[in-house]
Amino acid sequence: MIAAIDLQRAASRISTFRVHSPLISDTFLDELWDCEVYLKCEQFQPVGAFKIRGAANFALQLTTEQAQKGFVTHSSGNHAQAVAYMAHKLKVKSYVVMPRNSNEQKIENAQKWGAEIILCEPTIDARIQTTESIASDTQGAIIPPFDHEWIVAGQATVAMEILAEQSDLDMIVAPLGGGGLLSGTSLAAHYFSPTTQVLGAEPEAAADGFKGFMTGVRALSVQANTIADGLRTTVGEIPFEIIKEHVDDIWLAEEDQISAWMYRIWNETKMIIEPSCAVPFVALNAQKKKLRGKKIAVIITGGNVDLNTLP
Amino acid sequence: MIAAIDLQRAASRISTFRVHSPLISDTFLDELWDCEVYLKCEQFQPVGAFKIRGAANFALQLTTEQAQKGFVTHSSGNHAQAVAYMAHKLKVKSYVVMPRNSNEQKIENAQKWGAEIILCEPTIDARIQTTESIASDTQGAIIPPFDHEWIVAGQATVAMEILAEQSDLDMIVAPLGGGGLLSGTSLAAHYFSPTTQVLGAEPEAAADGFKGFMTGVRALSVQANTIADGLRTTVGEIPFEIIKEHVDDIWLAEEDQISAWMYRIWNETKMIIEPSCAVPFVALNAQKKKLRGKKIAVIITGGNVDLNTLP
Repeated sequence: MIAAIDLQRAASRISTFRVHSPLISDTFLDELWDCEVYLKCEQFQPVGAFKIRGAANFALQLTTEQAQKGFVTHSSGNHAQAVAYMAHKLKVKSYVVMPRNSNEQKIENAQKWGAEIILCEPTIDARIQTTESIASDTQGAIIPPFDHEWIVAGQATVAMEILAEQSDLDMIVAPLGGGGLLSGTSLAAHYFSPTTQVLGAEPEAAADGFKGFMTGVRALSVQANTIADGLRTTVGEIPFEIIKEHVDDIWLAEEDQISAWMYRIWNETKMIIEPSCAVPFVALNAQKKKLRGKKIAVIITGGNVDLNTLP
Repeated sequence: MIAAIDLQRAASRISTFRVHSPLISDTFLDELWDCEVYLKCEQFQPVGAFKIRGAANFALQLTTEQAQKGFVTHSSGNHAQAVAYMAHKLKVKSYVVMPRNSNEQKIENAQKWGAEIILCEPTIDARIQTTESIASDTQGAIIPPFDHEWIVAGQATVAMEILAEQSDLDMIVAPLGGGGLLSGTSLAAHYFSPTTQVLGAEPEAAADGFKGFMTGVRALSVQANTIADGLRTTVGEIPFEIIKEHVDDIWLAEEDQISAWMYRIWNETKMIIEPSCAVPFVALNAQKKKLRGKKIAVIITGGNVDLNTLP
């Protein structure tokens, strides 16, 4: 059970490690959907993604003795960078297990912050096994990407900042992958702005979250064939329970619109967003009639794209 | 003579037409140059560039009768969009004279705001002649891109916003093309923060401003073979006199580093900036020793890049 005070403590705990990212209004979307849209720009975080928040909230709750043994994680991307960045800031070692087929830029970015990268087979079993063996060898603390209350509370600080700036929002929209951000967002709205609806946006081609939300039973075995690489994971247990209770709806994004919308947002807003960030826009645009006259915040989760290998 | 009160009046006059753009700190540049860097994000203006400010300050000083005849301008890009946008907002017509070889996206963007586009030969004479003949036919008001006190005062509001947010800046850096922005920036610093230095950054391949600044005589015939399409123009008469008096220095950017730095900024800051905006970074990086320990704001002037025809 994550209480309001846990979110508030997370916000102060991580305050010097995260940037208070800007919330930018956008004329293009306002006119397109006949509503008021604000973009919460988490791509401006030090590691180019919101993941720094959960990782910071986790790392800063370890004892000094635990932290000094280093941090271990497995991730295909932004979470790895976030863990490496926190280790760099706290002057401890970090070990990042990544599948061999990871995006080149993401590997380099984790290395940039001094992480030792351990490549493994691109299966979830290999990742978990390798991570556990590294943790057992080093005695380092495993920092999970989403399925932990400390991570969820950390990610909730995105919505807390949004709600502090715009108090009368009708809706906050977050993409849904492992569920850390969406569950945190829904908790923040629940505690600090109960009239604000929280909407998840998920690729149709990785719709385990949607399926679980509709049936009430967490889906484990849905195929994830989406370009939105940050959203290929299955929703975690802890996030799932929170999402079931506090998220208002989950909308789907048609796969073949995702990359077009990514470029559209680049072009119109002059922000580089990852394919995962295009998912909310595709989902919202498909149901734009429901947006008319509303005041909406969309969380831009990150901007880590390999500019050399664009889709 | 542009007085402090003219800048202050410009700021209130245009306040509902421009966005108060965010001033974003940047870890990457801080670490690279060992200083404190803030980016003033004018690419987030409605037309994707700061030019909206000067155009608004001009358009809003015309009498209703004048304005109703429409606005006329010649421009290869962002100023055209700004004029078209203001005409759209004020519900009057706009006529934009553009050289035939203009960037496709910039033409489309001016059309988006309802401008009538008149293509002409890509020579300055053809542009001026066509513009004057349109203005004489329509009785519309010519809105110049930079060589006018109203335009300079409008562009000065960028630096006014920066200085209101960060009062103890050592330096503000703006790119130098026609000189509207740089002269306005230097006036704002002169009146509201005299200890802040103002630095212009110009492509070495279009260094008429630098040459004029060094000799004290405005240079008219320097070749402009730069990828920084927004900076190919010659400095105007009115901006030149202000720059001579109030700008502290002009630094040059080596041509073959401009596009690499544009991508570097895209990659590191997740912002889409135009080639012209890369010019300050190239110039600053070449003299990074001088930046150590300083608090610096760089004006990101715009983000209008044709993503289909990238350099």
